[in-house]
Amino acid sequence: MPAQMDVSRNTAPAPASNAVSITMRPAADLHVHLRQGPMAATVVPKLVGTGIDTFVVMPNLIPPITDTGMAAAYQKDLYQWAGDAGRDLKFLMTIYLSPELTPDEVRKAKRMGITGIKSYPRGVTTNSDSGIESYDAYYPVFKAMEEEGMILNLHGECPSNPEQNITVLNAEARFLTHLEKLHRDFPNLRIVLEHVTTKDAVDLVASMGSTVACTVTVHHLYLTVEDWAGLPHGFCKPVAKTFADRTALREIVRSGHPRFFLGTDSAPHPRHAKESAKAPAGLFTSLHPLPYLAHLFHQLDMLPRLPGFACEYGRAFYGLPMPETGAVTLTHVPVEEGITIPEVMTVEGMVGPNGTPVEVVPFLAGQTLPWKMTLSS
Amino acid sequence: MPAQMDVSRNTAPAPASNAVSITMRPAADLHVHLRQGPMAATVVPKLVGTGIDTFVVMPNLIPPITDTGMAAAYQKDLYQWAGDAGRDLKFLMTIYLSPELTPDEVRKAKRMGITGIKSYPRGVTTNSDSGIESYDAYYPVFKAMEEEGMILNLHGECPSNPEQNITVLNAEARFLTHLEKLHRDFPNLRIVLEHVTTKDAVDLVASMGSTVACTVTVHHLYLTVEDWAGLPHGFCKPVAKTFADRTALREIVRSGHPRFFLGTDSAPHPRHAKESAKAPAGLFTSLHPLPYLAHLFHQLDMLPRLPGFACEYGRAFYGLPMPETGAVTLTHVPVEEGITIPEVMTVEGMVGPNGTPVEVVPFLAGQTLPWKMTLSS
Repeated sequence: MPAQMDVSRNTAPAPASNAVSITMRPAADLHVHLRQGPMAATVVPKLVGTGIDTFVVMPNLIPPITDTGMAAAYQKDLYQWAGDAGRDLKFLMTIYLSPELTPDEVRKAKRMGITGIKSYPRGVTTNSDSGIESYDAYYPVFKAMEEEGMILNLHGECPSNPEQNITVLNAEARFLTHLEKLHRDFPNLRIVLEHVTTKDAVDLVASMGSTVACTVTVHHLYLTVEDWAGLPHGFCKPVAKTFADRTALREIVRSGHPRFFLGTDSAPHPRHAKESAKAPAGLFTSLHPLPYLAHLFHQLDMLPRLPGFACEYGRAFYGLPMPETGAVTLTHVPVEEGITIPEVMTVEGMVGPNGTPVEVVPFLAGQTLPWKMTLSS
Repeated sequence: MPAQMDVSRNTAPAPASNAVSITMRPAADLHVHLRQGPMAATVVPKLVGTGIDTFVVMPNLIPPITDTGMAAAYQKDLYQWAGDAGRDLKFLMTIYLSPELTPDEVRKAKRMGITGIKSYPRGVTTNSDSGIESYDAYYPVFKAMEEEGMILNLHGECPSNPEQNITVLNAEARFLTHLEKLHRDFPNLRIVLEHVTTKDAVDLVASMGSTVACTVTVHHLYLTVEDWAGLPHGFCKPVAKTFADRTALREIVRSGHPRFFLGTDSAPHPRHAKESAKAPAGLFTSLHPLPYLAHLFHQLDMLPRLPGFACEYGRAFYGLPMPETGAVTLTHVPVEEGITIPEVMTVEGMVGPNGTPVEVVPFLAGQTLPWKMTLSS
């Protein structure tokens, strides 16, 4: 079994009561990587039945999704992969911020229903070689986005820099001056600082105006640096930080702050790539996102915060309607009736080294969460 | 090729001159892991001809070396593995601090020529399950060590602790209060804070009395967290920290401080274990320790500090005589005449998964250092 954290490690024992449950509308994942090719063909159908019906899909494909036409084609592919069972899923598309993007293209994208523009600092994560180095050149684009009500999705990390002592550890904290400047210069531009990991960023965004929000991943609510030091299946970007940082994330979620909401950043990578000399960054949480959250929220004694975090706040910030039908119920059950996370998900149509199957190791692989999930329409 | 840092990445370009060289007596490695069984049988003979003739050998075997008899038997094994060509190597032995160790055993160890007692906090690194949790119980042992002139070798890290926000990142800094207390309570006990990684520790030890020193590894002079985030071959304990921390290590060495000296902490691990879901901590630098150092010291314009760092200061602190014969000359040469680090070292007599050979990936595997090394007797 792949080495991963034990779900029982970070948290207090669950109460003995089995009567605990929570019911909410279908949830929304405001930040997810669904990939392309055989990986997408494997992952996308599995989104059906997870209790999440709305996805803001990241554009870091090869090549990146840099215009409206590419986004429309990718969205069409996503619905094809989703199949009949997934026809009611909502795939909200994003475009990769690049020098080719014009204000006119932003306006066209808005008309076509594209939700946001994603900015990657160059080289910091998977397929970010086309990322930006400075924001100054993008001010006309940002102006158009502000006017059109298009969201700016920020991967908020500065690249490694020896002279400035920037590493993966402080890359997010060092980015915050850029966020402050963008917010000051475009106060009506809605900005999402994606996959927040630090107390510094939580405190800053909480103090900012109503147009700035954060997505929070499942895994950053669980993990710290202890879970990726030598452990590739816990390695992602931004890296999970300290216990104090994790506490800040948990506490802002516990407070029910409406500008901190779920974006899983779920990002499948082949196991053979993760277990190699150079592990790619990313964790795969898309199979069971809500049971992961219910388990942790319950152990942290904040289960009632789950509907706001996973369903309501993100939709409200994005201006999306809440579903008027459908319900997801998560119920705490004896562990023998719980949900066992598979050891691996096999990717059909891909072949690994020496002809072996390509597998993805899900977050908390092989562990059993003492929860059951029921969906109703 | 395994992903590792590029030697050209962290440092300024080398001067064009080819006349640069440095000559010194055979060096001393005041902290090394030579293992047991087939791994030791592979590694130990390769120490011959590396320009290092003196090794302080760590006791974290399975089972750990916890008394004088075990240390003597292990030393005998080391000479057997070293063979005729290695009969002049000096293996200085250490004992693993454990509740079984008595003041009488300390005195016996001293009489038998054992150099030091190694303390591992429980669970922080390879084979440290027998490590200590508190120093109080060991005061009688430390008193005997102080009286006998035995060295205390400290793995200076606190175990991970969520309540105290201790992670691998601050585990060394948080340990320093223990070091201060030990030094205050045993001012004449010689203490080596092994494999120092942080500015905090460098500054503290530099400010302390003459009985406290640090070993500095090859790899911590090269690496930062950027080199182990997702990169198992750069992962060790203590983990490499920030650029500022690395600068502190480089600058204390540049200053020629006599209480900061070479201890490689070289620790071979099978490649299949490193490239797995749970990478063990440790880098293997024993094949070419002096070329690694000459290359870096030259690029940092501090090559004249190499003899002090690698030969003199450690021996002086340990009270070992400098060799009266033998010379190691390192000469900067065109890269095509340089030393190419092998991609892997094959371990004879071990079989890996699916019957594959067991290999160890050396530090900077596959890269060429523009240096040649000549030894004379």
